[in-house]
Amino acid sequence: MRYRRLGRAGLQVSELSLGSWVTYHNQVNVNAAVEMMAAAFDAGVNFFDNAEAYAAGESETVMGQALKKLGWNRLDYVVSTKFFWGLPGQHGPVNRKNTLNRKYLMQAIDGSLQRFGLAHLDLVYCHRPDPNTPIEETVHAMSDMITQGKALYWGTSEWSAAEIRAAWDIAERHHLHKPVVEQPQYHLFHRRKVEHEYARLYDDIGLGLTTWSPLASGLLTGKYSAGVPADSRGALQDMGFLREGLTDAAKNAAVQQLAPIAAELGGTTAQLAIAWATKNPHVSSVITGASKVSQLQSNLGALAIADKLTPEVMARIEEITGKLAD
Amino acid sequence: MRYRRLGRAGLQVSELSLGSWVTYHNQVNVNAAVEMMAAAFDAGVNFFDNAEAYAAGESETVMGQALKKLGWNRLDYVVSTKFFWGLPGQHGPVNRKNTLNRKYLMQAIDGSLQRFGLAHLDLVYCHRPDPNTPIEETVHAMSDMITQGKALYWGTSEWSAAEIRAAWDIAERHHLHKPVVEQPQYHLFHRRKVEHEYARLYDDIGLGLTTWSPLASGLLTGKYSAGVPADSRGALQDMGFLREGLTDAAKNAAVQQLAPIAAELGGTTAQLAIAWATKNPHVSSVITGASKVSQLQSNLGALAIADKLTPEVMARIEEITGKLAD
Amino acid sequence: MRYRRLGRAGLQVSELSLGSWVTYHNQVNVNAAVEMMAAAFDAGVNFFDNAEAYAAGESETVMGQALKKLGWNRLDYVVSTKFFWGLPGQHGPVNRKNTLNRKYLMQAIDGSLQRFGLAHLDLVYCHRPDPNTPIEETVHAMSDMITQGKALYWGTSEWSAAEIRAAWDIAERHHLHKPVVEQPQYHLFHRRKVEHEYARLYDDIGLGLTTWSPLASGLLTGKYSAGVPADSRGALQDMGFLREGLTDAAKNAAVQQLAPIAAELGGTTAQLAIAWATKNPHVSSVITGASKVSQLQSNLGALAIADKLTPEVMARIEEITGKLAD
Amino acid sequence: MRYRRLGRAGLQVSELSLGSWVTYHNQVNVNAAVEMMAAAFDAGVNFFDNAEAYAAGESETVMGQALKKLGWNRLDYVVSTKFFWGLPGQHGPVNRKNTLNRKYLMQAIDGSLQRFGLAHLDLVYCHRPDPNTPIEETVHAMSDMITQGKALYWGTSEWSAAEIRAAWDIAERHHLHKPVVEQPQYHLFHRRKVEHEYARLYDDIGLGLTTWSPLASGLLTGKYSAGVPADSRGALQDMGFLREGLTDAAKNAAVQQLAPIAAELGGTTAQLAIAWATKNPHVSSVITGASKVSQLQSNLGALAIADKLTPEVMARIEEITGKLAD
Repeated sequence: MRYRRLGRAGLQVSELSLGSWVTYHNQVNVNAAVEMMAAAFDAGVNFFDNAEAYAAGESETVMGQALKKLGWNRLDYVVSTKFFWGLPGQHGPVNRKNTLNRKYLMQAIDGSLQRFGLAHLDLVYCHRPDPNTPIEETVHAMSDMITQGKALYWGTSEWSAAEIRAAWDIAERHHLHKPVVEQPQYHLFHRRKVEHEYARLYDDIGLGLTTWSPLASGLLTGKYSAGVPADSRGALQDMGFLREGLTDAAKNAAVQQLAPIAAELGGTTAQLAIAWATKNPHVSSVITGASKVSQLQSNLGALAIADKLTPEVMARIEEITGKLAD
Repeated sequence: MRYRRLGRAGLQVSELSLGSWVTYHNQVNVNAAVEMMAAAFDAGVNFFDNAEAYAAGESETVMGQALKKLGWNRLDYVVSTKFFWGLPGQHGPVNRKNTLNRKYLMQAIDGSLQRFGLAHLDLVYCHRPDPNTPIEETVHAMSDMITQGKALYWGTSEWSAAEIRAAWDIAERHHLHKPVVEQPQYHLFHRRKVEHEYARLYDDIGLGLTTWSPLASGLLTGKYSAGVPADSRGALQDMGFLREGLTDAAKNAAVQQLAPIAAELGGTTAQLAIAWATKNPHVSSVITGASKVSQLQSNLGALAIADKLTPEVMARIEEITGKLAD
Repeated sequence: MRYRRLGRAGLQVSELSLGSWVTYHNQVNVNAAVEMMAAAFDAGVNFFDNAEAYAAGESETVMGQALKKLGWNRLDYVVSTKFFWGLPGQHGPVNRKNTLNRKYLMQAIDGSLQRFGLAHLDLVYCHRPDPNTPIEETVHAMSDMITQGKALYWGTSEWSAAEIRAAWDIAERHHLHKPVVEQPQYHLFHRRKVEHEYARLYDDIGLGLTTWSPLASGLLTGKYSAGVPADSRGALQDMGFLREGLTDAAKNAAVQQLAPIAAELGGTTAQLAIAWATKNPHVSSVITGASKVSQLQSNLGALAIADKLTPEVMARIEEITGKLAD
Repeated sequence: MRYRRLGRAGLQVSELSLGSWVTYHNQVNVNAAVEMMAAAFDAGVNFFDNAEAYAAGESETVMGQALKKLGWNRLDYVVSTKFFWGLPGQHGPVNRKNTLNRKYLMQAIDGSLQRFGLAHLDLVYCHRPDPNTPIEETVHAMSDMITQGKALYWGTSEWSAAEIRAAWDIAERHHLHKPVVEQPQYHLFHRRKVEHEYARLYDDIGLGLTTWSPLASGLLTGKYSAGVPADSRGALQDMGFLREGLTDAAKNAAVQQLAPIAAELGGTTAQLAIAWATKNPHVSSVITGASKVSQLQSNLGALAIADKLTPEVMARIEEITGKLAD
């Protein structure tokens, strides 16, 4: 496993990391989490991604219990969570969902630490931007988590370049802890933010990236080329919002064209897609998901493929996918 | 219930909120508070206003015990208190009453938290300006409460525009937590501060407002048009200072003229007066009082009336009350 | 009793206050301290002055035990201590005496709080300037005591105007808690610092003063006019450094001339001297000492004399003492 | 013993101090440490140097247990540690070795305090510069240790002048605790950093120095002039990296020439070398090592030699060693 700095920050994360979205609690219980995290850790993975909203807090609980069983030294792993979506409550979303206000954030971190059973989290993200809270209020709250020792670094997820820069500027002006990382969606068919919108931020503020959905929710595995398989994520009741994208004809055709390239390199289309994401030097870690150890091992195989992605191969991939990417 | 941001802050409060001045401890015991707060909460009220000085601390104790019985999730309600008037002591007012000095404030917050039985308050107000303490000393103390996790937001009550701006500027310059809200008296007969003096603050510093006395201590209910009823607040021994205002002939006549308008809209004069206050977009929440659940329900009826306050109706109200307002 | 703000700070202290130098532990035990502090408190005194170095820490212990027995509400009194002289140790003065370095200060406050048995002190003073520690280091440490809640306000004692201003400027620039008070020696024969050197500081930074030795160690009582009485402070073994000043012929002669003026006003020379110190509007509190309740009561009598110090009387006093003052 | 300020900081350290590198745990157990530290302390040594990496944490444990047995007053000694090299872990060096990132530093201080059994350390050093962590991240973490009360002062070891200045500037700009000391290697054959590279820092930022290896790992004792003795540090398996330097012919010849000068002054070559280091007024403390009390006593004899290092003697030493120094 190779490790990369989180942008300009001194923290180093493994090129491939393990996320818990969708899977933990729903498909993965504590024992399965222990098994999968142990396999990942043994392969060198040191970053485990989570969020308060995943399975309404249960994903944090499962991962926390797994960490306790695994008993790793706290220095050897990086664990994150994210705040914004919140958990259901009596008054609906007021001050507890879809917000980054101080009240929510200060209580959210305490809830997460309790579910994880940890004294601190390494990384805390603002899961989405909140147009209804001043960025200054959010920056102050996130920075306070670090000052209080409840977190070590903070970042954003799916914020605009302007919002990230505003947060950084406020932190610089008021001498607060600055955001160091953004977590955007990034795969062969979704590139604009990472490659264009954020372009100046890498140098200007040293932004790091941990990217999600390297397989475009499974589209890049090729398994949706003949429709939605019954046992796939696309078939899950709550994931209806993904269905249209997963069955896009042009994109599925392109995935079919990638298959022989992957085969040439000795891998699968999925491995090729993950490997492609790691080629971007601004990406610190590509977050992968898995509900079985075999799937995890397959994902980790992408690292070997990445070594074979010569400029020539990259050009062939670009020709197939470039015109379809947003 | 609708919710509004507290000025530019990310915190959202219900358009109508429930105050405890006069009533708690004096007219409302813990069981009655539980009943009334539950009714308000079920109707969507999420903001409960209090102050150290209300019933000399007993109002906080009553509300704290009620909150404990109600057992709501801490994210679902916003509770405030205010500091300035203090509690009686051996040396009279020195450093404990009518002050915003650091000694008083740092001990006052601890006393309030203990009476409430809460780990933090959402909102803490400077109940009045203190000409004998530098604003910088007060701002530093209020900001320290937030840094220490004892409060989440702070504001002022009945401060001048110049004082509020001074506090905001000091906080900006020294990188402290800024005041986000002012709590002024605001009703049909008392408008100058809200509508003129503070005018520039809404845009310049994003000031929010929680307003008190929407019924002008009962004058706007119409019950003082024939003198002071024996069972009214105006008849209470400690409230003598209100009596003159409550029996003002011109104002009582105007209230009589509002009655048919209210009736046309299907409500009472009191509901019309509360509804009118909510029409001001700078008002985040109108604090209402009640000593009985029926009175609370009646107050909440104002929301339906507010929907019927068309520009034409507002003009008729203005014609009747505008010339009498200070 | 009248109260004055501590310079521009919001804290109010009684015009006369009670110090513990020399007396506590040496001449005053816990029971006597309780008796004397109770008498002072009943007369309105709210400020009790102390220092780590008084009786090598024992003065703090005695006062702390007295406060515990008295059981006053914490808001009703102001208690101070001072750091610099330190306590004896194995390596001599290194890092523990005659210093204001961070190591000493951070441990000194913890030691004082423990001896007092208090959660916080109201006022903490740098007992002398330390030319061997950067003022920035000292300012940061004193400010940290306030941020940590161990103290509420800080000041200096016998610092030069330039040093006080430097401390204030550093605190302003680095957004730290500023010094609010200086404790200088001040009496009829010692005025230069208060009346000239500090002159600009009162307006520029709002400096307050708590002054010590209003009786010039007893010289202004008149009891040294015929030599050093056997039971006086001047006769104490450790107080040899005071002896020369106490027996100054010209000053003792002047004191004799003050006696008839004091008698005219119905008081003693000592009361006249204390009253004179309170006439300076920049003085927040005159610290008096006493080893017996009767002496304390006599000191408090100065307040009545102060009311009789007309401009004409002040001019007569000035004529007698002005030329002898340094 | 004489004491010097740590550069411009108010902390005073003994001209000679006692380090634990190589010796503690390996050659010195708790009882021996007690004996040696007691002898040093009795001779006036007040500074005891350590590092997390010495004997992989065991050196801190040994010194902590010795301190507990010795029972000195906390004000009377200064104890340091250093962070960078880290301890071995499961993923190799990622985030735990050769780093100054926030994750490592915040956990390293807690680990050190636990091994020492102390509530705070007096001095914490960044043991080496880390090119892979922004200096701002490191400065913020080191300053946070002080704000949290876990350390009192911080500094660097073997940083470049530019790095030290960058750290100081960042702390000044963001109002954080500044670095006050650097710990460089400094002896007759290694001078460039101290005498040239850092030259402007002494005045500009008040940098202090605690220097290590005054005997050039033993070369300056003269015992390597006939090769590497079997019982010397140079013969230790882990110290192979020192061997080449220790057997340098020209340097060993120079050491032979120093012997008669040392004898003239009544001391050994080793004492002469230590004494020479203390003559540099920018050096706050020369850290010496010892595995036996006799060796410690011999080192302390250097203080007497230092008094005899007249300009003439210094010139003779310079002639012998100057051309060989880097």
